Amino acid sequence: MASQSQSQPPAPPSKTSALAAPLSALGFELEEITPKKVSGRLHVTENCVQPFKVLHGGVSALISEALASIGAHMASGFRRVAGIHLSINHLKRAELGDHIFAEASPVNVGKTIQDCSWGLAIFGQVWEATLWKIDPSNSNIKTIVSSSRVTLLSNMPVPEHAKDAGEMLKKYAKL
Amino acid sequence: MASQSQSQPPAPPSKTSALAAPLSALGFELEEITPKKVSGRLHVTENCVQPFKVLHGGVSALISEALASIGAHMASGFRRVAGIHLSINHLKRAELGDHIFAEASPVNVGKTIQDCSWGLAIFGQVWEATLWKIDPSNSNIKTIVSSSRVTLLSNMPVPEHAKDAGEMLKKYAKL
Amino acid sequence: MASQSQSQPPAPPSKTSALAAPLSALGFELEEITPKKVSGRLHVTENCVQPFKVLHGGVSALISEALASIGAHMASGFRRVAGIHLSINHLKRAELGDHIFAEASPVNVGKTIQDCSWGLAIFGQVWEATLWKIDPSNSNIKTIVSSSRVTLLSNMPVPEHAKDAGEMLKKYAKL
Amino acid sequence: MASQSQSQPPAPPSKTSALAAPLSALGFELEEITPKKVSGRLHVTENCVQPFKVLHGGVSALISEALASIGAHMASGFRRVAGIHLSINHLKRAELGDHIFAEASPVNVGKTIQDCSWGLAIFGQVWEATLWKIDPSNSNIKTIVSSSRVTLLSNMPVPEHAKDAGEMLKKYAKL
Repeated sequence: MASQSQSQPPAPPSKTSALAAPLSALGFELEEITPKKVSGRLHVTENCVQPFKVLHGGVSALISEALASIGAHMASGFRRVAGIHLSINHLKRAELGDHIFAEASPVNVGKTIQDCSWGLAIFGQVWEATLWKIDPSNSNIKTIVSSSRVTLLSNMPVPEHAKDAGEMLKKYAKL
Repeated sequence: MASQSQSQPPAPPSKTSALAAPLSALGFELEEITPKKVSGRLHVTENCVQPFKVLHGGVSALISEALASIGAHMASGFRRVAGIHLSINHLKRAELGDHIFAEASPVNVGKTIQDCSWGLAIFGQVWEATLWKIDPSNSNIKTIVSSSRVTLLSNMPVPEHAKDAGEMLKKYAKL
Repeated sequence: MASQSQSQPPAPPSKTSALAAPLSALGFELEEITPKKVSGRLHVTENCVQPFKVLHGGVSALISEALASIGAHMASGFRRVAGIHLSINHLKRAELGDHIFAEASPVNVGKTIQDCSWGLAIFGQVWEATLWKIDPSNSNIKTIVSSSRVTLLSNMPVPEHAKDAGEMLKKYAKL
Repeated sequence: MASQSQSQPPAPPSKTSALAAPLSALGFELEEITPKKVSGRLHVTENCVQPFKVLHGGVSALISEALASIGAHMASGFRRVAGIHLSINHLKRAELGDHIFAEASPVNVGKTIQDCSWGLAIFGQVWEATLWKIDPSNSNIKTIVSSSRVTLLSNMPVPEHAKDAGEMLKKYAKL
């Protein structure tokens, strides 16, 4: 998007576009990426709102599922994960021009995630994701926007054609 | 994004970009828009997938909330609506290159929506949204991808600065 | 609880108390039990209401999860199932004295349930459960009360001490 | 149920049976009752389990919705509340004989609940409820059982015939 002089190569894809392309398309930027916390920021632009100029609830849902998926992927030891359910409460609205901070973490903090089995040899994770409006000048939280739960299965073998999905994540993660 | 000859004016915004900008940013195209059914299509591109090259669950969530919101807006007689909860089950995966058909409709079909009150003078709606993989050559359904419920409140006054949100929708809707 | 003459043996446990003891404790009675549909009835007594004399939403949730679990157990070929998520919309209230009809069925009707895999060798089911108020004289539906989705995992081995759980269900089911 | 000598009057209804009859029918006992926290305990008996002798997920759902409703009723200043959605993740199983501790609190702790408006003059609350297995000898938490979110509307007038619902709650609550 930025203008580039002709002699320079194109910029490499950002962390966000590599790990969560749909987030990147909406302007979201990933920040912290660890197996216990995944966070990032969004400036609410015209691309992110519904016709009432309010942050689209579906965008909040997308952010929540994306952060949880990245975290669960790491927490599973880079096995394949699949989100099977998302439940999100939209609590307060954010408007065009607002700044959003989003953070996801596992619901059962302090336990080995792989212990969270439903039965024998079935591993699941539940992550919580929260969005807040922040003051962009100092990152202070102003109000909560949404709160969600993402349920994921995480004992799935990685298919051959997607072997590099984990490599990409390892490159950007703080383990 | 397409190159345009200099003598032509820019193309007018599409129906989708006017009614649901985030959907448009991901390549989704709205089709039918009525107070009882809202539908559309998505070609699963690199913009829509997670690193395993599977349709991002958050994109399914965004589509579901967007279609339900548009429908509830119409069904409320163009009053202001606000989604307060989304719950989505991801059932089968769709992959890069697949074609998706999505459709939303009210859960309590056949009833006057305004009857769906929780108490006195509080009007709510619950919409269901489903995504399927389809054969693009004949639109035949191949398999279900996700199934969701969106809960919306719909008796809110329209703020002055958003008076044209309903006008935009009326322009594209089949009432 | 009913008074019994001393010469008679105690009545055998009902179908409902054998298959879903908590439902039985609240007065619910199971009717149809098949791998594609599970249904039953409840007369709304003092045991089932909150202090406003309205059917307790938690009772609707319990009924929904119970019917879905019984159905999923059958549909899995009597393997062990575990509900991992319930999402319920309370749509209209039912009051003390009302009669409720409840029915659950799989969301992906018409497909082999075991096909509903999230990845390799992980089998899940999503069931939908609905409660309606009915006219007890003719069972005609008057209004919808709630609509829910239950997510279950169903490829779990049956532990030794619970081998008879499936036998009990087979005794009452119509397969 | 307990045998009583003939000269004594029947015991007055317990706090739990007065405030949440369905919970009482399953053996649950309310403990703390405040506008910021509602808690209680359950001994998992035959009445509470499914045929695999595991705590019925629907019972966890009922407990969660009941605790949240009582809390929201208080937090709304004893106006009428109505649960409109429950979403619950079942995380770990509890078994016959286990002891459960349950606690609900508002998601947006630290804010005036009435501020949590969706639009003008519509008041909603979202409560979180958690169940844990505990060691009954010292009440130490052993493991999480479920985690849920309850969405409630709370600006509804109290109907004439239910005026005493709030009085009952005030009697038992610590305000």
